[in-house]
Parts: sequence; structure tokens; C-alpha cells
Amino acid sequence: MERTTTLSARRLASMLDASEDGTGPAYRRLADRIRSAVMDGRIPTGTRLPSERALAEATGLSRTTTTRAYEALRSTGLARTRHGSGTVVHVPLGAAGSTSMLGRPSRPDGVALTAAAAEAPDGFASLVERAMRSLPAVLATDGYLPDGLPILRERLAARFTAQGVPTDPDQIVVTTGAQSALSLLVAVLVRPGDRVVVEGCGYPHAFDMLSRAGARLLPLPVGDDPWPVDDLARVAPSAQLAMLVPDFHNPTGSLMGSPARRAVARTLAASGVTTIVDETLRDLAIGDLEMPEPYAHHDPNAIVVGSAAKSLWGGLRIGWIRAPRSLVSKLVQERMVRDLGTAALDQLVVATALEHGEIVPAGRREDLRARRDALAEAVGRHLPDWRLNRPEGGLSLWATLPVAASSSLTVAAQDEGLTLTPGPRFFPTLPALGERHLRLPFVLPPEQVDDAVGRLARAWQRVVSGQPQGAHDPDTVDLIA
Amino acid sequence: MERTTTLSARRLASMLDASEDGTGPAYRRLADRIRSAVMDGRIPTGTRLPSERALAEATGLSRTTTTRAYEALRSTGLARTRHGSGTVVHVPLGAAGSTSMLGRPSRPDGVALTAAAAEAPDGFASLVERAMRSLPAVLATDGYLPDGLPILRERLAARFTAQGVPTDPDQIVVTTGAQSALSLLVAVLVRPGDRVVVEGCGYPHAFDMLSRAGARLLPLPVGDDPWPVDDLARVAPSAQLAMLVPDFHNPTGSLMGSPARRAVARTLAASGVTTIVDETLRDLAIGDLEMPEPYAHHDPNAIVVGSAAKSLWGGLRIGWIRAPRSLVSKLVQERMVRDLGTAALDQLVVATALEHGEIVPAGRREDLRARRDALAEAVGRHLPDWRLNRPEGGLSLWATLPVAASSSLTVAAQDEGLTLTPGPRFFPTLPALGERHLRLPFVLPPEQVDDAVGRLARAWQRVVSGQPQGAHDPDTVDLIA
Repeated sequence: MERTTTLSARRLASMLDASEDGTGPAYRRLADRIRSAVMDGRIPTGTRLPSERALAEATGLSRTTTTRAYEALRSTGLARTRHGSGTVVHVPLGAAGSTSMLGRPSRPDGVALTAAAAEAPDGFASLVERAMRSLPAVLATDGYLPDGLPILRERLAARFTAQGVPTDPDQIVVTTGAQSALSLLVAVLVRPGDRVVVEGCGYPHAFDMLSRAGARLLPLPVGDDPWPVDDLARVAPSAQLAMLVPDFHNPTGSLMGSPARRAVARTLAASGVTTIVDETLRDLAIGDLEMPEPYAHHDPNAIVVGSAAKSLWGGLRIGWIRAPRSLVSKLVQERMVRDLGTAALDQLVVATALEHGEIVPAGRREDLRARRDALAEAVGRHLPDWRLNRPEGGLSLWATLPVAASSSLTVAAQDEGLTLTPGPRFFPTLPALGERHLRLPFVLPPEQVDDAVGRLARAWQRVVSGQPQGAHDPDTVDLIA
Repeated sequence: MERTTTLSARRLASMLDASEDGTGPAYRRLADRIRSAVMDGRIPTGTRLPSERALAEATGLSRTTTTRAYEALRSTGLARTRHGSGTVVHVPLGAAGSTSMLGRPSRPDGVALTAAAAEAPDGFASLVERAMRSLPAVLATDGYLPDGLPILRERLAARFTAQGVPTDPDQIVVTTGAQSALSLLVAVLVRPGDRVVVEGCGYPHAFDMLSRAGARLLPLPVGDDPWPVDDLARVAPSAQLAMLVPDFHNPTGSLMGSPARRAVARTLAASGVTTIVDETLRDLAIGDLEMPEPYAHHDPNAIVVGSAAKSLWGGLRIGWIRAPRSLVSKLVQERMVRDLGTAALDQLVVATALEHGEIVPAGRREDLRARRDALAEAVGRHLPDWRLNRPEGGLSLWATLPVAASSSLTVAAQDEGLTLTPGPRFFPTLPALGERHLRLPFVLPPEQVDDAVGRLARAWQRVVSGQPQGAHDPDTVDLIA
């Protein structure tokens, strides 16, 4: 029945070690750390916390401290005591509903920098209008499209082929967004105990999915190069699968160069590792660089995942998989117990967008470049001791903080009406490393950037100066799950 | 890595027992039976068949018979021999792609009676047009709607409330169709070994999903009443969950009466069983009956699943869950590793359709009634010894055949260019019972019905007269996965 998992005191204590905030009374610091872990999804709602005594033993804190910390969590609505069954984390959803990664601000003047996703680009409404002209032919069918709308599969295949990756429409499965594509692939390809090479930091929901399927993650070392070939050669022989994001890697924005693509593909092929390549951000090259060839150019057996949600708009739940033919029917069969197929209207919109082979609307890259530059400029001005990358594509900046306090910053930012995703969420096996980082999606229009970064700077100031953080705003927490 | 499951000889033999066709050479009968099991999804593509010798031992057939049967499967492209790893079922997808339940005919003149789904109703295009007027407000957001578009959640909640099931918008999660709703619920609620009460026959993909989650099915006995309360009272104490379809039960079309609703709800509540009610077909009452109150009227804790795919159009991947608030945030969290949210355009269309509370377009019920009556009339004329129900709602007739030969009929029908779903697919634990049944969706326009039923009657004639079935058409098989 309804799952209530119990968190052991030792496990909770190890999660908290990752945070390093050090201001205010001990009970509040403890409560804040637990709150961070709940907010970033490491502790799911419904989880039973260890007893106050067990937590005191595991952390070395006094019983009074753990008891008061739990009281503080309860008083802000983040935990409930169930008679006879301890303290259970409870995160109510607000009317606008949201989750950690897709957190919405609850204050009317709030700002979210959680999802790397902006409003729809100019011209989107007229794209929809054009697409709807093709509606009648689809309406004459029952609308179920388990592998995808034929014209969309054709156009996607033609685009792959034009990019140097020969692809037949039969090799394409249209999915309900890239997340659903990854989820289908994991269901079909991963068996418990399989070892999967991943970047040392990356997209949390992909890691979560792999872990739930029972995979063992083999993260590459974290450093300036997300794909160190020597380390890859060391882990590849024990891996069955690799899941990589070579094009504007999320969250760091790194782009795998052409020689690295060749070397990585050769290394993985030598060990017979099946590779899933997530190209969700590939279309969003906004710099003046020349894009390297797609990864699959070096490994024709690579399974490629793409999406229209980033290039066009997140409200379109359209992703796709390019896979060897032998895998396609298995994927389609797997989705019969999941979603039966992908929305026909959305598929028409993306097929129409691809009419001339280019999915990104005119002007969108320039717009994103302006947003990136405005955000980078404001962060440089308000927070001069932060180090920022300057990615040539994708949707977010990657900040390195001078102090390891990303989770505390996330808590403090809430009081400023600013919702963030704490750095540790991007580090599957070593969350502590994430305390030095923050992902900053450059999705706000330039005129809103200064206000948002001002809030960020105020929150940071409070964290580093050790000021007690303001009273928790229950309305804000309401919107995080 | 890529899953290849091996089917044991004993298991394959037990699947084949369910078929009772008895004409033509033994090897072809064996091949046809295996083909049926592949076609209806009981043997998934990629499955390794037992060796010819093991199958001969398990079935009592000669080695020559099993060898020739496998050859026949290979020659029609339904199986492949992999060097050193035996015979593997392989079902290529055609360009139009499809699966057993959503099978498409491959011949240009072909007809499918697999999905209980028709073309979009009159007025659908103008509904879309009206909905798109509300697009700008949604386009101003990032489009991610993890729990659903607020206006749609409000209208669904108001509709539940108006039907006697008080519901707050916070209790609604909009999903990517009803299948995705069930899939989310199973992921959150079912643990391996949980016992789940289900109807003795029902929707195959729901059973498949429960089985994959490790649930143990407790099917109610099959009979004229799908919900025998005495039997329910017997199994309920050992169950954690029940999954029921009280409104035009799929596939039988049965409607649970008001007193039965009360009795079933009371019985399940007495044992503390959580109940999932699938109301996907509830809106499609096409008879003159007065609809009983919704099941949840008797059990306010019931989790209700609904969908727009049947009432409106299958191309809209919109379903929903009404759940206790405590469950909503868990469901939203679970979908973070699945699809992140549901298509915004589709949600706008359904919200617009619900503007006045009624989701089914004017004229659709009359249209479906005409289709039902035309199909029933034609079956009565062409196949007078078949017994048909005459459901007061839903989308399909349920036929009882005078001879247990549903799987053979499905094979024979292929040669007539008619795609069917064999009866055993609807019987999770006793497929043999399904050989006496066939689901006939009344989705064809009346003018196409006579041709389709003519094909059905010719196929049936060949089955009962023991005529050898015509050569297998590889094009037809191409389209079944």
C-alpha cells in the first residue's frame, strides 16, 4: 500500500553533512538542513524521519536540539507527527502546484530560477495556427500514435540524416518529452544491478530514474572536463550502459569537442557499452561557435534522445528517441503500460516547426543570448566573488560559489521570494560537492534580471554574514514538493 | 542490458492450451497458436522461445512438428534464429506503426476493430480553435504543468462536486491519459506482493501494469455479474487494493447498479481496501438509462481515474486522477521521473470542452448509438449464432462465440484484412475463458459496418469449417507488435 519509507538516523545524518551552514541556534541550523534536503527532493514527502533520540545519537547533537528542530519543522508545516508512527515529512502542494525542480514562487512578486525553461518564443502562436491547418487529416483517425505521427517521424529522421547520422523514420519513436524518452529507455534497457556511466554532475531526474530502476551509477570525476577519457576507459569495462549529455551539458553548459567525441565513442565501443546520448539542448547553440558533429556520427548505434521542450516550449510534451530498429518495437510495447502515445496536436506543431528542418524559431537564439548576457552581467556586478562559466549554448549559467553554502542560500532566497535549486541536487553520488555550485537558468527577460539577482545577492549576504534567516514563509513552502 | 526473456517450454505450452483450433496440419496449428500469443502481446517481441526439443516434450508433439512450426514462424518474419541463442520472437513495426491493442490494418482496404476509439467527433476542430484563444496566457509561462493547468483542475473538481463527489482542485492531478494515471497510481501505491482485487476480465494494459509492478491479482469470478459481492467479501480481507471499472466495464459493457455500488464500497471499506475506480467510459452513456451516482459517492476516499480520450478523442492525451490530498504530492513527485507534466494545448482543449460542465460534444451520443445499433444488427444478421450484449454505454459490444476459437478467428481475420484483439487478452489469469469471447468496438461509421462484419463472418466460417487458413500475409504481421 501507500509507501512510507523510513529514513535511518545514519542516512539522514550523512545527508546533512553535505550542508555547511553555521549560523544561528543549533536547532534551527539542523531544521534548515533538513528543510533543504526536503526542498531539493532528497527526502521525499511522506518519508518518516528517524526518532529524535536516534538522530541525536547519529549526529552527536543533544536530544533537546533534535526535538526543537522537529518542532520547528512541524510549526512551518513541513512535518507532521502521526500518532504512533513518528514524524513524517509532509509537503503540501499549493494551488499552482509544483515541485522542487519546477518550483514556482508563491508570492505574487516571486521569481523562480529553477526550471531551465522560458515562456514561449515569439511567433509560437502563429506556428500553432499553421499546424492546426493539418488537423483534419489527423482527426479522421482515432488519434492513437504509439510510435508517432508519420510526418513527424519522417522529418526527424531527415534531420538526423542531414546532420550526418543516417536515420530511417522506422528508427524514431515520438515520446511525451525527453523525460518520458529516458524513462522508456531505462525501463527497456536497465536491469537491477546494471552499471551506468554518467557525468559526475548532471540532470537530477535522470539520476533518480536510473537509481529507481536499480542501476548502479558510475559517475565520472567532477572537474573542468566532464568527460575525462582516461577515467572513462577505467570504468567502461565494468559498465553496460552510458548516459551522456555532450551538447551543452546540463548543468555545466560544457560542450564535448569533436576529438573528445571520437575518443569517448571509441572507448565505450571498445567495452561494448550501449550509449544513450541526450541532445535536448543541442539546438540551442547561441554563441558564434561551430557546432561539432552529433555524437552518433561516431557511434551509429548510439541511442539519441531529443526534445522540443527546450528548443521550442516546455508546454509541448514532445521528445523523441532515435534507436536501432530492434529496440523500437520494444519501446513501443513498453509504453502501452505508460501513456499509449503522445499528444497529436503537439506532434503536429513540432512537425510544422520542422517543415524546413530548423526547429528553433528565428530570433530565439539572439533572445537567449541577450538573456544570458544580462544575467551574467548582473551576477558579476552583484556578486563579484562568484565564478561563472559562459556557456555557448543551453539555458543556464553554472556558478561556483566562494563558500560551500548552496543549500543555505536556497533557504535564504526563499525569504526573498526567489526559488532556486540547490547545487547538491545535480551531484548524484557526492552531494557535498554541489554546495559550491548553483545553476542559474538564463530564462528571465533582461528587464527582470536585476531584480532577481538583487534578491540572490541579498540572500547570499545573509548566508555569508551568518545573519539568522528570517521566519519561514509557509506560503513559499506550500509550493515545493 | 537489453532484456531478452526466455519463455520456458512449460509456460509456452500452457499458453497454447488456451487455443482450441483444430484444423490443418499439426505444425501449422502450432505455429498459428504461437502467432496468436505473439499478436495479442502475451509473448512480447524479443522473447526467446524454448528449444524445439523442449517444446516437443512439454506439448507431447513430435520434434518434427515443433521444428516445422518454428520454420513457419521464421518464414513469415515473426521469429528469427540468433546464432547460438535460439529462436527469438521478432515483430517488425510497419511505417504506420502499431501494437496489438492499437493494431492498424496494413492493407489499404483493411479494417481494425482493436482500439475502442473512433475518429474525432463533429465540432472538434472548432473546439480546438476556441481553446487556442486562451493560448496567450499559457504561452507567457514556461509551460510546465506538473499537476495540471489550474483552470482544468478547477473545472474537473467542480464537475466531480456537481456529480455528488465533493472535490477540491488540489485533489486533481492531470495526467497524460488514463493509462498514465493508472501507471502513476500503481507506481506510488503498489509494492511487490500486494494483492489487488480486479474484475475477472478487463483491460489488458491495466493487468499488465499491475503484474509488472509485482502485484498479485485477485480476479473476481467471471460471470454475468462482474462484481459478485459474496466473492468480493471473501477476497477483500487479503487485499490491499482494488481496481474496478463500474461504469460500462471494459470489455463487457456492464454497469454497476446503485445498490451494488453501495454494497461493493461497504465491503471494500470493511477490509480497509484502497479502491481505484476507472471512470474512463462513464461519460459515454448512450442508452435511455438513468446513470447511477459515481462510485466515489459511496467511498469518498476512492481514487478516481478519468479521461478525455474516450469522451472526446484519443489523440488528446488527457487523463486525470482525483485523489486524497495526501496522495497528490506523491503522484506529482513520481511523474518527475516520467513525463514532468501533460501537454498544455491538450489541457486547454479539455478545459474549454468543460466550460459548461459537459465534456461529450452534442450529437456524439446519438452518433455512437447509431454505430452500436448498426454493428449489432450486422453481427446478428451475419453471425446469428453469436450472442451479443447490448451495452447502454461505452464503446464496444461483447460477443460470446458458440465455439471457443477467438484466437484462431483473429488469425483467420487477418487474411480478410480485419484486425481483431483475441478474447484471451481480456482474461488475466484464465485466458482459456477468453476463447469464447470477442470485443467488437462500435467505432465504425454505419456505412462501413456491413463490409467489416462480412469479413468477420467469412473468417469465422473458415475457422468453424476447419478450412486451412490462407497463407500468412507478412504485411499484416508487420503492423502488429
